[in-house]
Amino acid sequence: MEKVFTVTLQGGKTTDVFFADSIKDLSSKLSSYGLNALWVFDTNTAPLFKNLPPNRIVLESGEKSKNWKSIERIISAALDFHLARDSYFIAFGGGVVCDMTALASSLYMRGTKLILVPTTLLCMVDASVGGKTAIDYAGAKNLIGTFNPAQDVLISSDVLRTLSESEYISGLGEVLKHAILSDNEDLYNFLVNNKDKVLNRDRATVTEMVKLSIAVKNNYIERDPEEKKGIRSALNLGHTFAHALESITHFSGISHGKAVAWGCGRAFEASYELGLIDEAFYKKVSSLFEMYPFDMSYRVGRGEWLDFQEAIGKDKKRMSGNVKFVLIEGFGKPVLKPLDMKLVQRIVIASPRIK
Amino acid sequence: MEKVFTVTLQGGKTTDVFFADSIKDLSSKLSSYGLNALWVFDTNTAPLFKNLPPNRIVLESGEKSKNWKSIERIISAALDFHLARDSYFIAFGGGVVCDMTALASSLYMRGTKLILVPTTLLCMVDASVGGKTAIDYAGAKNLIGTFNPAQDVLISSDVLRTLSESEYISGLGEVLKHAILSDNEDLYNFLVNNKDKVLNRDRATVTEMVKLSIAVKNNYIERDPEEKKGIRSALNLGHTFAHALESITHFSGISHGKAVAWGCGRAFEASYELGLIDEAFYKKVSSLFEMYPFDMSYRVGRGEWLDFQEAIGKDKKRMSGNVKFVLIEGFGKPVLKPLDMKLVQRIVIASPRIK
Ligand SMILES: NC(=O)c1ccc[n+]([C@@H]2O[C@H](COP(=O)([O-])OP(=O)(O)OC[C@H]3O[C@@H](n4cnc5c(N)ncnc54)[C@H](O)[C@@H]3O)[C@@H](O)[C@H]2O)c1
Ligand SMILES: NC(=O)c1ccc[n+]([C@@H]2O[C@H](COP(=O)([O-])OP(=O)(O)OC[C@H]3O[C@@H](n4cnc5c(N)ncnc54)[C@H](O)[C@@H]3O)[C@@H](O)[C@H]2O)c1
Repeated sequence: MEKVFTVTLQGGKTTDVFFADSIKDLSSKLSSYGLNALWVFDTNTAPLFKNLPPNRIVLESGEKSKNWKSIERIISAALDFHLARDSYFIAFGGGVVCDMTALASSLYMRGTKLILVPTTLLCMVDASVGGKTAIDYAGAKNLIGTFNPAQDVLISSDVLRTLSESEYISGLGEVLKHAILSDNEDLYNFLVNNKDKVLNRDRATVTEMVKLSIAVKNNYIERDPEEKKGIRSALNLGHTFAHALESITHFSGISHGKAVAWGCGRAFEASYELGLIDEAFYKKVSSLFEMYPFDMSYRVGRGEWLDFQEAIGKDKKRMSGNVKFVLIEGFGKPVLKPLDMKLVQRIVIASPRIK
Repeated sequence: MEKVFTVTLQGGKTTDVFFADSIKDLSSKLSSYGLNALWVFDTNTAPLFKNLPPNRIVLESGEKSKNWKSIERIISAALDFHLARDSYFIAFGGGVVCDMTALASSLYMRGTKLILVPTTLLCMVDASVGGKTAIDYAGAKNLIGTFNPAQDVLISSDVLRTLSESEYISGLGEVLKHAILSDNEDLYNFLVNNKDKVLNRDRATVTEMVKLSIAVKNNYIERDPEEKKGIRSALNLGHTFAHALESITHFSGISHGKAVAWGCGRAFEASYELGLIDEAFYKKVSSLFEMYPFDMSYRVGRGEWLDFQEAIGKDKKRMSGNVKFVLIEGFGKPVLKPLDMKLVQRIVIASPRIK
C-alpha cells in the first residue's frame, strides 16, 4: 500500500493514510497487524470479508446502533479476547462502525491502537480522518465522544462496489463541499471533468477524488485539531441548514450528503445576499452541485418554517451564544457568521433570486 | 490561592495546582468560574458545601457508583443545564467523584473545561493530578477511561476535617509510597519528624505534606504522561501485592492505602531478597511504615495462597506478558521486574527474614 498522507493531530499524534492498489494489497496490510487485535464490522460489512478473523464482533448496521450499548459490546469482546493496551482495534465499516470503534479504542484501558478501514465514500473522505469519535445520546447526535486519531487509515476504492447508490451519492455531497473549501480549484475541476467516471465509480477516478478530498480536509483539521479556533468548524459548510432539513424530514427520504449539498446551496445564496461573493462565483459553485444528482431547488414549505427554525436553534446548544453559519468569500475562504432569521427564512422557502 | 505547580501532561496540556489558605480563599476561587458550570458531588461531600450551586448533581458515594450509569447522570445533567464545550465541569469529592467527573468532561461534546477539588487525602496526592479518568466495568477496576488532565486542581486541607480516620490513613499509605519514590529524602524526613502533627491533621503540616507528595508524583507523570515508557508505572509500587490482598479480602476490612502500605513492605522485602537494597536501607524504609498505623506484619494464610496467586494473574491482563512488580534500588530508584512465584509466596506467607 502507498502511504499518501501523514496527518498531525491532537497532541502531535499522527495518522498515516494508505491507499490500496487492490483487495489483495489491502488484505496483506491488514494481516501485518497480527492476531493481537479486535475486528469490528457491521451486518453489511462483515459479508464483504472472505475469511472473517476469529477475534471479531459484528454490530447491527445503521445510526440506530450508534449508542453506549454497542460500545459495551465492543469493550466486552475485547475483555473476552484478553486484549490489552498494546492490542489493535480494527474498524471495517462506514462512519458508524469507525466512530464507535474509535471511541471504544480510546476508552478501553484508556487507549489501544486503532486502525480504520472506511467502507463508505463518506467515511473515506470525512469520518475516518480527523480523530473525532462519537455515539449519539438522548436524541443528540454525536453528543458523547473523544478525540482519538487512528494510527493508520486504509483506503481501497474496491470496497465501494457493494455500496448502495444512495450512500455513494451521499458521500459525494461531502466531496463537493470539500471542492469549495479547497484553496485551489483542483478538486472542483476534477469533479467537473470526470463526472461520468465519478458516478460510475471508476476505481482510479474514485481513488484520485478521495485523495484530493482528504487533502482539503487535512488543511483544516491540522490547523485546528480540537475545533477550538473556528478553523475546523468551516468543514460544517452547509451543515446547519442540512441538520435542520434532516430534522424536519425526520431523517427519512433524504440522505445526509444530499442534505449537506442542499445546505451548501443555501450557504452560497446567503453569501451572495450578504455581498460576500458575486453572481459569477455563485453560479460557478452552484453549477457543480447541479451537475451531480442533488436537488438544489428543493424548498422548505411555509408551514414547516417554524420547525425548521427551532431545529436551527438546537444546533446552538453546541455553542454558548448564537448559531454561526459557515459562509464563503471564495474558494477556500470560509467565514463564520450569525445570520438574520428573516434572511434564512427567505433563502430556504423562496426560490433563489439568481437563476 | 497560591499556584504551586504547573504540571505538563498529555499533548502538552497543563494542570495548575492551587493551594488555599482558608475555606474563604477556596470559595472565592470557585466563584471565579462563574455560572456556566456543572458541579458534581457525592452524598458525603454535598453537605460540606453551605450554599449548593443550582447546576449540580449529587451521586451516591462509594466505589459501587463508579459506573456508566453515573456518567450518564452527569451527561444528562449537563444537557438539562444547556452546557456546552466552553462550560466547566467541577468535581467536589474524592477519587470516585473526580475520576468520573473527569471522564464525563472528556466525553461530553468531546471535552469541556475541568476543575477538580479533591476532598480526600488520597485524591489530593494521587487521583486529582495526572489526567487519568475512569469507571469500573464488568468487575474490572478502572477498565474504561481516558486521559484528561484538569485545567485547575484546588487543594484545601480544611476540607479533610470531616474525613473518617480510616480514609485519612488510607491516603497516608500513598503519601508514604511517594516518600520512597522521591529522589530526595525531604518527604521521608518530613514524615518522620512530624508524625503527630500529620496524624492530627494539623492544617499547615498537611498542606506541606501534600505539596511534597504531589511534587514526587509530578516527577513521574511528566516524564511519561500516558504510561507508555515504564516510568509512570513505578507509581504502582506496592500495588500488585495490594490488589491481590484486596481481592482475597474482598475489599472489606482493609482500606486501599493500608493495602498499598503492606504491598510496599512486600516490595521492599523482595528488593532485599534480590540484593537490590541492603539491610540498612530495608530497615530505614520499613521503619517509616511501622511508625504509622500500618500493619506491616500481616501475612496471607497458607490456605489463601492460591487465590492470592490467581489475583496477581488478573493484574496481568492489563499488559500482554508477565506481571512486572515495582521494586526499589534506593530512594527514587524504582525498577520493574517479574518475580518468581516461589519468592512471592514466601514473602507474603512467611515472616520477614529481617526483624
Ligand atoms: N468522525 C467524523 O469526523 C465523522 C464525519 C462525518 C460523519 N461521521 C459519522 O459517520 C456516520 C455516517 O457515516 P456513513 O454514511 O458511512 O454511515 P454508515 O456507517 O451507517 O454506513 C451507511 C450504510 O452503508 C452500509 N455499508 C457500509 N459500507 C458498505 C459497503 N462497502 N457495502 C455495502 N454496504 C455498506 C452500512 O452498513 C450502512 O448501512 C454518522 O454517524 C456520522 O455522525 C463522522
Ligand atoms: N485518577 C487517578 O490517578 C487515581 C489515583 C488513585 C486512585 N484513584 C481512584 O480514586 C478512588 C479512591 O479515591 P478515594 O479514596 O478518594 O475514594 P472516594 O471518592 O470513594 O472517597 C472515600 C469516601 O470518603 C467520602 N468523602 C470524600 N471526601 C470527604 C470529606 N471531605 N469528608 C467526609 N467524607 C468524605 C466519600 O464520600 C467516600 O465515601 C478509586 O476509585 C481509585 O480508582 C484514581
